Amino acid sequence: MKTYLECIPCFLKQALFAAREATDDERKIKLILDAVASHIPDIPLDSPPPQTARLVYGPITEITGVSDPFRELKEQSIQTALRHYKKMKSAVESSIDPLRTAAGIAIAGNVIDFGSHQHFDLEKELTAALEKPLAINHYESFRRSIEKARTILYLGDNAGETVLDRILIETIGKDTIYAVRDIPIINDATLEDARKSGLDSVARIMSSGCDAPGTILDRCSPEFMEIFRTADVIISKGQGNLECLSDEPGPIFFLLKVKCPVIVRNLGAPKGGMILKDARL
Amino acid sequence: MKTYLECIPCFLKQALFAAREATDDERKIKLILDAVASHIPDIPLDSPPPQTARLVYGPITEITGVSDPFRELKEQSIQTALRHYKKMKSAVESSIDPLRTAAGIAIAGNVIDFGSHQHFDLEKELTAALEKPLAINHYESFRRSIEKARTILYLGDNAGETVLDRILIETIGKDTIYAVRDIPIINDATLEDARKSGLDSVARIMSSGCDAPGTILDRCSPEFMEIFRTADVIISKGQGNLECLSDEPGPIFFLLKVKCPVIVRNLGAPKGGMILKDARL
Repeated sequence: MKTYLECIPCFLKQALFAAREATDDERKIKLILDAVASHIPDIPLDSPPPQTARLVYGPITEITGVSDPFRELKEQSIQTALRHYKKMKSAVESSIDPLRTAAGIAIAGNVIDFGSHQHFDLEKELTAALEKPLAINHYESFRRSIEKARTILYLGDNAGETVLDRILIETIGKDTIYAVRDIPIINDATLEDARKSGLDSVARIMSSGCDAPGTILDRCSPEFMEIFRTADVIISKGQGNLECLSDEPGPIFFLLKVKCPVIVRNLGAPKGGMILKDARL
Repeated sequence: MKTYLECIPCFLKQALFAAREATDDERKIKLILDAVASHIPDIPLDSPPPQTARLVYGPITEITGVSDPFRELKEQSIQTALRHYKKMKSAVESSIDPLRTAAGIAIAGNVIDFGSHQHFDLEKELTAALEKPLAINHYESFRRSIEKARTILYLGDNAGETVLDRILIETIGKDTIYAVRDIPIINDATLEDARKSGLDSVARIMSSGCDAPGTILDRCSPEFMEIFRTADVIISKGQGNLECLSDEPGPIFFLLKVKCPVIVRNLGAPKGGMILKDARL
């Protein structure tokens, strides 16, 4: 997916939010906005938005010295999600279709996203997910692919959401590799966040090798690419991964919440919509 | 009022919206965003946001050659508002407090604003205005000041809103000067828009001399300043005028809809709130 013109004001909005997490110094925040603005002419519109993340988030570290401004928010998100784990697990276990329920919960978990929007109510999302229909519903294809699959590559997105991903992985019960970002970027999950979410007990956790808030394949490690090319099913969480992989062939299923107008237009689904999309359909 | 850091991403959002009104050429729009971004380090945070309008809207004219991108939207807004004139006039005439009803209608009309937000439903706003309480309610002071006043200076804001302002001016029935922007800027009313709204039959229309989307006093004409300093009551419509005049002493009443988070914080009123504020209280 390309970068749309609407993404440009949004990059500055994201930079402001992240800068405020890194510092209270208004003067430094203004310098960060100035620096991000100076990069706007360099933004490649033919690349997916996560490609631009370094231009947006790099100045925050350079100017404040803070390399992980979302550290605290990520920790809170994981703790909040862990508090919902038991109830959601019960909902799956008592469901007439546990896979469908677990997929809905994992999709709802994608609401934890401090990049594209900053206000959400996880409890409300999770409750709604148990009843709400999918805006794009390729569940039957998902179910059949999962049934046949021996190996699953699961592309994580945000810290906290990871706990809800764990429920889907447990429900699927197959050999799963859970890939995370190589370094802290926005509130995306890293190896440490995945471990804190208990994913190490249900999957093999690995870094994709990519430092962007999305799986940009030509910045991923050879080890990851080998798995990406051979996995029977790829579960791709979130907008960032969709933006990077929407044109890829292969057995990819995109699970996400629609959080911005660009994705609304791209998928033809409403804002807030829950998506389970087979990349091949 | 100063410019807040949140205004900065919003300036780019406004530039994008306005650029799209001026041209369909995505390449030119990107050049406009690049140009606006290059001005971000020059934005004076100690000045009100309307001071920055030239940096935001200037590149649109320079790059597209279009000096009034909102011309068509302004015309549509006036026509839409004129269709509501009769019904709103009747509502005022049958009200137990015509001045209060007319003030509410004029405030609701401030929703027509393609700068701070771009989606609204005038009919819904006007209907709600007839029942909805004011979020800041200095109506008693307003009523008393209007009763005593001989001369009123009315600072217009957006084209279309002008038609609803006319109802308030007719209801007040006193000697009124209606001041508009000197040149087209965003969708703010000019002399031509005021005439199309029928204001010339109920007030003396004049330019404030200011080319910004707000009344920046040191860019206003001496003729306007003489009236500004001597009018018994000043009715100031909209966010842009509030941003420029919030620290002014004098018999100013701010009538507006709260449309952005910066005004929410500044006034302590909710987004969407209807404001009738005495500057002296």
